[in-house]
Amino acid sequence: MNPEQYEILDRVLEQPVLKRYLFPDPVVIESVELLRDRKSFICRVRSSDGAEGVSIGHPFISLESYPVFVNALIPFFTGKDARDLDALLHEVAESQVKKQGVPFCVQLATLEFAILDMLGNIAEKPAGLVIGDLLNPEVDIYLGHLLPQLRNLEPEVSLGMMDESRIETQAKAIKLRAGRGDNLASDIDNAPGRTEKLIRMAREKFGDDYVLMIDGNGSYSVDEAIRIGKILEEHNFYWYEEPVPWDWYEEQKIVEQAMNIPMAGGEEEFGMHGFRYLAGNEVFQFLQPDIFYFGGMVRTMKVARMVEAAGLQISPHISGGGLGFLYMLHMVSVCPAAAEYHEFKMFSTKDPNGTIIPVESKGGPFESVGGTIRAPKGSGLGVIIDPDYIKTHTTCAN
Amino acid sequence: MNPEQYEILDRVLEQPVLKRYLFPDPVVIESVELLRDRKSFICRVRSSDGAEGVSIGHPFISLESYPVFVNALIPFFTGKDARDLDALLHEVAESQVKKQGVPFCVQLATLEFAILDMLGNIAEKPAGLVIGDLLNPEVDIYLGHLLPQLRNLEPEVSLGMMDESRIETQAKAIKLRAGRGDNLASDIDNAPGRTEKLIRMAREKFGDDYVLMIDGNGSYSVDEAIRIGKILEEHNFYWYEEPVPWDWYEEQKIVEQAMNIPMAGGEEEFGMHGFRYLAGNEVFQFLQPDIFYFGGMVRTMKVARMVEAAGLQISPHISGGGLGFLYMLHMVSVCPAAAEYHEFKMFSTKDPNGTIIPVESKGGPFESVGGTIRAPKGSGLGVIIDPDYIKTHTTCAN
Repeated sequence: MNPEQYEILDRVLEQPVLKRYLFPDPVVIESVELLRDRKSFICRVRSSDGAEGVSIGHPFISLESYPVFVNALIPFFTGKDARDLDALLHEVAESQVKKQGVPFCVQLATLEFAILDMLGNIAEKPAGLVIGDLLNPEVDIYLGHLLPQLRNLEPEVSLGMMDESRIETQAKAIKLRAGRGDNLASDIDNAPGRTEKLIRMAREKFGDDYVLMIDGNGSYSVDEAIRIGKILEEHNFYWYEEPVPWDWYEEQKIVEQAMNIPMAGGEEEFGMHGFRYLAGNEVFQFLQPDIFYFGGMVRTMKVARMVEAAGLQISPHISGGGLGFLYMLHMVSVCPAAAEYHEFKMFSTKDPNGTIIPVESKGGPFESVGGTIRAPKGSGLGVIIDPDYIKTHTTCAN
Repeated sequence: MNPEQYEILDRVLEQPVLKRYLFPDPVVIESVELLRDRKSFICRVRSSDGAEGVSIGHPFISLESYPVFVNALIPFFTGKDARDLDALLHEVAESQVKKQGVPFCVQLATLEFAILDMLGNIAEKPAGLVIGDLLNPEVDIYLGHLLPQLRNLEPEVSLGMMDESRIETQAKAIKLRAGRGDNLASDIDNAPGRTEKLIRMAREKFGDDYVLMIDGNGSYSVDEAIRIGKILEEHNFYWYEEPVPWDWYEEQKIVEQAMNIPMAGGEEEFGMHGFRYLAGNEVFQFLQPDIFYFGGMVRTMKVARMVEAAGLQISPHISGGGLGFLYMLHMVSVCPAAAEYHEFKMFSTKDPNGTIIPVESKGGPFESVGGTIRAPKGSGLGVIIDPDYIKTHTTCAN
């Protein structure tokens, strides 16, 4: 614990995020709706002046926790001035202690995305630009998809699939998966020596200079994490992510101190105080708040600023499916201390019912050229969601 | 961080909890049902041999997170051997990282209570005795109810209400409330000097020898927590609970080191690793896992054993309403390192729809005599819930 470092971070946390000066008049949230079609959820907010914002929920967590949206978030946000977003998010995230966790934050993020869409529409700016400045108009991606394939298929087969995605996107970095990914520190691999083989084969296949990361998803005890980490050092990996269970922060620090390559983590952390600890103690060099799991972009911006103050880097996590890539692009476009590469799980906009979400970009196509995607240019979230698709979703009961 | 202490706790965590030897034959969980009537939830499990267990859900959190019961817990537990309960709970609680938190644990606890009811019915023992030995056949209570009254009414009025409950139950200890209870470290009281007044008045009213605790529910910053704590020391308080926000464990340790009276906390902690930290570093002297919020009695028993190994005490937290008092009695009856007093919020068995839950004790009435309640004696959870009441609840959709 370093009190001086925490003082610096606490001052950072006091700084406002939403650019309130963009909104001279109140933006009263007249209605908040959660719409549902089986496993798919959409949030729509409307202001008393008729402005509207729409967001698509999380592809697989919205279904687990939607009652808290209906029972707690709708009553809390209805009638409030959206210009108070910083304070509203702080109060609802920190004071409702029995609701906290990733499932709650996912609902909060869904609502925040819709509010930022509405505010961006009012200010005629992309959602990112109502909370930050355009620091990264182009976002370099790393491929973070194919998680089950990288663990369960033959290493050469899964690396072949990854290579196809690399060719398609021209991505300059790829993330592999280590161990069984069970968050149980079981030290069990899906086959003996499988992870070592995957590491070696990937380095051979993609060449000495290609950027490779790897994610353990909590597979290892401290000793095994360090043993695998030493192999990663030999193969010049760019970062080593979450080898021990996510909340083993003291043990993670032991691994970090034993490593000569940077470490990455934080995607399951839902607490601001938790990220203050992670940044203040350099538990990881790359911090990875998930834009959904951590409750949205305003909160993630606070983490980014702490990361910057601590001299570290941020690379926000995002799940595949839904509009995850879009939220990632908005966030990274305005992120201070952004890492060089950001998580990308392909432009797969399927909703959890298997329907391609019909979205149209307001400002040029979303595409990866040379492994780089340009930040969205249209107002709000930068997309128009087909109204007929929205109509397939109806008001969600609790 | 103390590696030797953690080694001791890790050995404790490896010890089995469920008394498997009581069940020579498999107890296959043939069905798991979540039944619902508006805001009220009931869990029913049945074995393939026709044994049955029933539990009443949490009075106000079940409604927030029930989809995770339907979508995740029912598929996970159906078809499993209930004798593997320790391992099943470990796997489902630790590996489903995106679901973790109090709302998930509440669902897990609801299911575990029903399984323990079923196992107790099979073994013809109270639920507590299938996971532990009868260490505390009589449970001394402290009054922990009247939370909003103690914060919002005039101090003399709320203390008068508490005194009525004291007379009714003959409880030998009472818990007050400090600050606004917002978990925001706001240092704001509901009226200037109100908490100091409440502390002084309570000591005068109940006398020098009466046992008084107080709970801050995260009201204070470190400095204000210590200032209030010094006043509590002067007035000889028995414990000082959660003055700073629940997850400010480093800051809590600073307060703890500044105090000459014991501290209590942990009710919002949902992680086993979190309790290992709290016990291993003596962040509080009294640890208070909530039997619902922490995911049930087997997990709470593991905390109790860590607490015992660390030379601390445990006083499980429980919400008012529903059958909370019953779960508390089962747990405390078999708890090692149990504190002298345990949380009691009156025998209020109202469900969230306002209906008194019609339960009949299988073994003598539940009553507080001299501030002491005898542990339940009947098999399983020790109660028969009126079948007609259960019938008002129907299968819960997701």
